[in-house]
Amino acid sequence: VAGPCAVESEQQALDVARHVHAAGASLYRGGAFKPRTSPYSFQGLGEEGLKILARVRQETGLPIVTEVLDTDTAELVAEYADCLQIGARNMQNFSLLKKVGRLRKPVLLKRAMSATIEEFLLSAEYILSEGNYEVILCERGVRTFANHTRNTLDLSVIPYVKRISHLPIVVDPSHGTGKRMKVLPMSRAAVAAGSDGLLIEVHDHPELALSDGPQALLPEMFVQLMKEVRLLAPVVGRTA
Amino acid sequence: VAGPCAVESEQQALDVARHVHAAGASLYRGGAFKPRTSPYSFQGLGEEGLKILARVRQETGLPIVTEVLDTDTAELVAEYADCLQIGARNMQNFSLLKKVGRLRKPVLLKRAMSATIEEFLLSAEYILSEGNYEVILCERGVRTFANHTRNTLDLSVIPYVKRISHLPIVVDPSHGTGKRMKVLPMSRAAVAAGSDGLLIEVHDHPELALSDGPQALLPEMFVQLMKEVRLLAPVVGRTA
Amino acid sequence: VAGPCAVESEQQALDVARHVHAAGASLYRGGAFKPRTSPYSFQGLGEEGLKILARVRQETGLPIVTEVLDTDTAELVAEYADCLQIGARNMQNFSLLKKVGRLRKPVLLKRAMSATIEEFLLSAEYILSEGNYEVILCERGVRTFANHTRNTLDLSVIPYVKRISHLPIVVDPSHGTGKRMKVLPMSRAAVAAGSDGLLIEVHDHPELALSDGPQALLPEMFVQLMKEVRLLAPVVGRTA
Amino acid sequence: VAGPCAVESEQQALDVARHVHAAGASLYRGGAFKPRTSPYSFQGLGEEGLKILARVRQETGLPIVTEVLDTDTAELVAEYADCLQIGARNMQNFSLLKKVGRLRKPVLLKRAMSATIEEFLLSAEYILSEGNYEVILCERGVRTFANHTRNTLDLSVIPYVKRISHLPIVVDPSHGTGKRMKVLPMSRAAVAAGSDGLLIEVHDHPELALSDGPQALLPEMFVQLMKEVRLLAPVVGRTA
Repeated sequence: VAGPCAVESEQQALDVARHVHAAGASLYRGGAFKPRTSPYSFQGLGEEGLKILARVRQETGLPIVTEVLDTDTAELVAEYADCLQIGARNMQNFSLLKKVGRLRKPVLLKRAMSATIEEFLLSAEYILSEGNYEVILCERGVRTFANHTRNTLDLSVIPYVKRISHLPIVVDPSHGTGKRMKVLPMSRAAVAAGSDGLLIEVHDHPELALSDGPQALLPEMFVQLMKEVRLLAPVVGRTA
Repeated sequence: VAGPCAVESEQQALDVARHVHAAGASLYRGGAFKPRTSPYSFQGLGEEGLKILARVRQETGLPIVTEVLDTDTAELVAEYADCLQIGARNMQNFSLLKKVGRLRKPVLLKRAMSATIEEFLLSAEYILSEGNYEVILCERGVRTFANHTRNTLDLSVIPYVKRISHLPIVVDPSHGTGKRMKVLPMSRAAVAAGSDGLLIEVHDHPELALSDGPQALLPEMFVQLMKEVRLLAPVVGRTA
Repeated sequence: VAGPCAVESEQQALDVARHVHAAGASLYRGGAFKPRTSPYSFQGLGEEGLKILARVRQETGLPIVTEVLDTDTAELVAEYADCLQIGARNMQNFSLLKKVGRLRKPVLLKRAMSATIEEFLLSAEYILSEGNYEVILCERGVRTFANHTRNTLDLSVIPYVKRISHLPIVVDPSHGTGKRMKVLPMSRAAVAAGSDGLLIEVHDHPELALSDGPQALLPEMFVQLMKEVRLLAPVVGRTA
Repeated sequence: VAGPCAVESEQQALDVARHVHAAGASLYRGGAFKPRTSPYSFQGLGEEGLKILARVRQETGLPIVTEVLDTDTAELVAEYADCLQIGARNMQNFSLLKKVGRLRKPVLLKRAMSATIEEFLLSAEYILSEGNYEVILCERGVRTFANHTRNTLDLSVIPYVKRISHLPIVVDPSHGTGKRMKVLPMSRAAVAAGSDGLLIEVHDHPELALSDGPQALLPEMFVQLMKEVRLLAPVVGRTA
């Protein structure tokens, strides 16, 4: 899974899509509705962003993952997206979990910043209990005292989730570290720990990004990442 | 502000209300829609609970604070409640914040379990920026490694919020500690640190409570708490 | 307990001592051997500092609390000090704990930055088990994600320690918050929560302090603190 | 680096040593002086343990890493050991750091449970500034709210340390997770993230271990770990 943090324009979205497609990504991520800490930050392009994502799929064939922010727009997002993302801040937005549980699209559920594994799995259970069984868990870093990193990536959840749950788990090392130079080594580490996939932010001009530029990879770094992951995968008994 | 965690029945709600009214509480708290970690836990009585809360107000004259869980039921809750509570898990549910920003009822905004002060104040800003200026902040404990307590009550936010914001701040020592025996001393500490109020869970049969029994005070402990707070208030330059 | 973070000169130590003595402090704190994160920071005056502390006691009659950094200098410090402080970084320096357990001076044991209560009490047990029963616990803030404060003061340990241990517990709101403007409200909160005492940093020229200036009170702020604590103490059933 | 948490007997130490030597370990770890949270727990065999470690080296040719607990016994330990370990609880025991800085043996410095990277590197600086330049850093997990693991292994320090320091860094996934079933995947993850080595606890009868049994690998699991690491190493540009 790769793509920019936010869809900013059709040009940007398509440029990044062609790059990640060529490098071998299997899904495209991009935010149309963005949850932002401040009400005065860029909030995403909304439905216009969804339409751009649909163009990306049409052009590249890549399925689309994008975030659902609330119950009111969930159905609209589900019309365009192939996979619905629930962000960390909404992991315990139980009304939203029930809503996507009633939609028939796979759900990518991100772990909240201070959620225990039990809370994480019980949030997944809200979706499952409505009849939607396609839930993918996503570790994206937890909040600790450590200040060398935006969040502390807790890779040790992977073997634990593997033991007690049948749900797949992927890792987001972009939000999980917040720093570009850590994304490659932590992607390798995630795969080595048994992650079923990676969620990577890629931007062709990160210095101009409207959201989370410092953690986005340049397209050529993403090519390198895919190369390394392809080498690692067979060692841990997987096909890339 | 005092009352049970969840409204369980009219009898229970009224019994507790009479006790806390007699002891001098100025608002009544009680959950009709309850956010629960597990989909299989008691989820509150819903609209039935709101009607019971209306009876409580009618009988005792106490204004009602109750939680708003989602945008769909926000207007319904606002019809019954005098003050709308946004729970810790929804502190960054930005759609909900905007929604209550458009309703004309005071909002009690609880700090998320790992929110920085900046994030807390920016969530309040989502409500203010929609034109609703009656926002009350509520510290209810943060998540740390410490295991002697359910959450670690971070009272040092009080002097900081007082310095950089004009918004009132209250403390919830019931959720903030999770243990009955700590509620009294931490209530005194909150008032001494400058808190503008307290949010206390009271239950006449905590051992039978459907939610958070271990942290609820017995009515007679609440009487003692009010007595101690009345003694402390003038020392810190307040009227009780 | 009040005084500067580090003893810097005889003049400074005596000036501060006269101020805090006049305001009613009952012990004088000052570091001769200082544990510093960097090897290139000011490390304290060593034995020269101890001699200055002895002069302070002679002049003011105030008993002296000062830190013991290692087993090699423990006996030297014990010759001068009335109470031996074990710093947070040494809370699990078990050889040092055993050493002060064999000296016959009261020990002020500070909680480590991420110690559970069980670890804290077991460290006290290292001292007690050597036959020294005069141990005073000291809460000085724990390390969390919260960035508005240097450390998060965990006052809820007080009722817990009171319930399960017979040891007295005091609070250090200077290190516990790291910011001067929080020291007064958090001192009041500590006393209201049941603290048996306070450890306050006072400096007559904090802007020139060689260590921890931003958290030191000016002498006139300390006078105000003592006044407020004297008003609070009887409310929580104590004599000031 | 592999071996038991504590040296319990000559038989146990030699049995484990033969196993890890055969599997390809390059150093042997074993505690003679053990820092224990409680004064009533097994404290290690002391000098007797050091003599057993010397026998292990003689028999297997494996160099020995063992912990130095205090300045008093540092020279004794240095007589027997090839590499001196400073435990997490002593990372800011500055007197001990200076002492091992004056001894001429490599030092393995473990990160404290809530140390920032800056503090970690400044503790290394205490050793370097005394003239001992052979310092190996060791990440062993930090303390967070997460309760599915004993400590949260913070692998993202590896790329950061690699960028700002010339010191080698190794990972201890045994203490870093506290659970046997996580040691293999987290060992792979550490190597993939760029770790220069691993510190693994191995015990032939973990259920009888006097210290930290639940995290020790059985000898056959250690063989499997070495096999996997040998496959991974070339992928990340290393020789095993």
